[in-house]
Amino acid sequence: MSQRISVTGHTSVDYLLTVETMAGPNASAPALDCQEYFGGGAANVAAAIACLGGDVELISPVGKDFAQKEYDKELQEFGVDLSKLYFIPDRSLSKAFIITDAHSNQTTYFYWGAAAKLAEMEPPRVSFVHMVTADCFFNAKMSQAADFVSFDPGQDLITYQKEPLNTILENTDILFANRHEIELVMKIAEKTFEELKNMIDLIVVTRDKEGSTLYENEIADGKCVKTIETDIKAVLVESVDPTGAGDAYKAGFLTAFVKGYSPKICCQIGSVVSSFVVEKVGCQTNLPDWNRMSERYAVHFDIFDLND
Amino acid sequence: MSQRISVTGHTSVDYLLTVETMAGPNASAPALDCQEYFGGGAANVAAAIACLGGDVELISPVGKDFAQKEYDKELQEFGVDLSKLYFIPDRSLSKAFIITDAHSNQTTYFYWGAAAKLAEMEPPRVSFVHMVTADCFFNAKMSQAADFVSFDPGQDLITYQKEPLNTILENTDILFANRHEIELVMKIAEKTFEELKNMIDLIVVTRDKEGSTLYENEIADGKCVKTIETDIKAVLVESVDPTGAGDAYKAGFLTAFVKGYSPKICCQIGSVVSSFVVEKVGCQTNLPDWNRMSERYAVHFDIFDLND
Repeated sequence: MSQRISVTGHTSVDYLLTVETMAGPNASAPALDCQEYFGGGAANVAAAIACLGGDVELISPVGKDFAQKEYDKELQEFGVDLSKLYFIPDRSLSKAFIITDAHSNQTTYFYWGAAAKLAEMEPPRVSFVHMVTADCFFNAKMSQAADFVSFDPGQDLITYQKEPLNTILENTDILFANRHEIELVMKIAEKTFEELKNMIDLIVVTRDKEGSTLYENEIADGKCVKTIETDIKAVLVESVDPTGAGDAYKAGFLTAFVKGYSPKICCQIGSVVSSFVVEKVGCQTNLPDWNRMSERYAVHFDIFDLND
Repeated sequence: MSQRISVTGHTSVDYLLTVETMAGPNASAPALDCQEYFGGGAANVAAAIACLGGDVELISPVGKDFAQKEYDKELQEFGVDLSKLYFIPDRSLSKAFIITDAHSNQTTYFYWGAAAKLAEMEPPRVSFVHMVTADCFFNAKMSQAADFVSFDPGQDLITYQKEPLNTILENTDILFANRHEIELVMKIAEKTFEELKNMIDLIVVTRDKEGSTLYENEIADGKCVKTIETDIKAVLVESVDPTGAGDAYKAGFLTAFVKGYSPKICCQIGSVVSSFVVEKVGCQTNLPDWNRMSERYAVHFDIFDLND
């Protein structure tokens, strides 16, 4: 069994509403479609790692409707260890309401629910953690309680404060961010990109269909001698729903990383896993196992035998 | 046992989101609170009639999540007969997403779900029906299949067409509408209020906190000799959430009506039942039984012994 990955962050339910036109204040509009999907960044990443055959546990707050909706069963069927979940009996799961109109405009309302209790939680000591957005104070404590830290600041970054963010960054070994997030990390932490590269040995900046860039420090005698920059192409497929693509990328990267693949191959595997998720609506509806991923990998990248 | 009341219309789930500020297109906002409540006009009315001790059945389309959410159990516990529900296996329950900001502005998205199949349904023959908004074509057929018709055009009135609306009105014995709805009924049906009064022997126009007005035809030799207009005061209480107040009013009115009370007393009982529902969030969370209703009735109206 490879290294266990502990994933922290949100476990939530996504409500995807399709409307012709958004309704303004004191108005109503019919919803043409309304679908409920299991989501939340941490749960998405954990489910995808488990599908790829990784050893994964989810450290996340859940509410009273977690079992009622049989979300627990689904994650257990994927193979995610749920023994370290925080159960908050007087709260519901966090929920995202995503309203999309005919011109692809999106409005999102996010309810923290049980996840609002994260800041009060004392994180367990773990070996390898991947922190998916969520509360900055919890993540600061978590980053100090783990031997190896992977961090995806994600959509909650707008709520982050300088001090806990810098605590997290000082402990981070791999940083994932999209173009907007990396700018916001620099702004809140008051760090230049050079300073970030000096602090963190692996930085992956994702750019949707334009692929991703890996910044990898070359270490000699315990010191960074230079940073190698590598562009990784996206694996383009017919996309139905981009939601969850980023989570799938990180799941692919990390599963490969703990298997010992080079960061470049990890990024490529991330792109491949991500390409599956966008083919279907929902973040956990089209997750590949290692074999399906390997087959598609061979089509898009130099033929390479990805051993299980 | 008194006359059975068959209630048709929506059975749905209400998601009440509280936000500081509404989010525009391509923006997101946190939801401060998010509550899920059982609702839908028909289910609200049926639940309230059952609580008051009335004999009631619900004729409404429900989806696969009806039992999953244990909504069936709740209605059965109230005492609602569910044997005539339409079960639509490939649809979910209809859902209302109601977003309220700090200035009490409200935006609503309504997903018809299983209720979109209503137009295709063939209504059963019934003795006494109360039709709560929903599809105009189904309601037109239903109004012809019932001996006695009570009609609440409600929020779906904006989707109504002239011909089915006139079929409904020709068969209607009691019409309930608020000030805006009565105007819209007249506009779509192309009828004056005088014409409506000539067609329908009992019309109740509700005005929120300003009470309601009863228009009751006096019949002699099978003909309307005059219309008596009576104002009924609202029973004012500390209101937490006005949602469901209208449904509760009709439930109170109809339960009393089939017991043989005069239309004026029926309106007063409607006001009393309505006052309970606004005291708590949710449409089915604070329904009174006949005794609790009678006690409050005695406080607000001329002392009158409301026999069970």
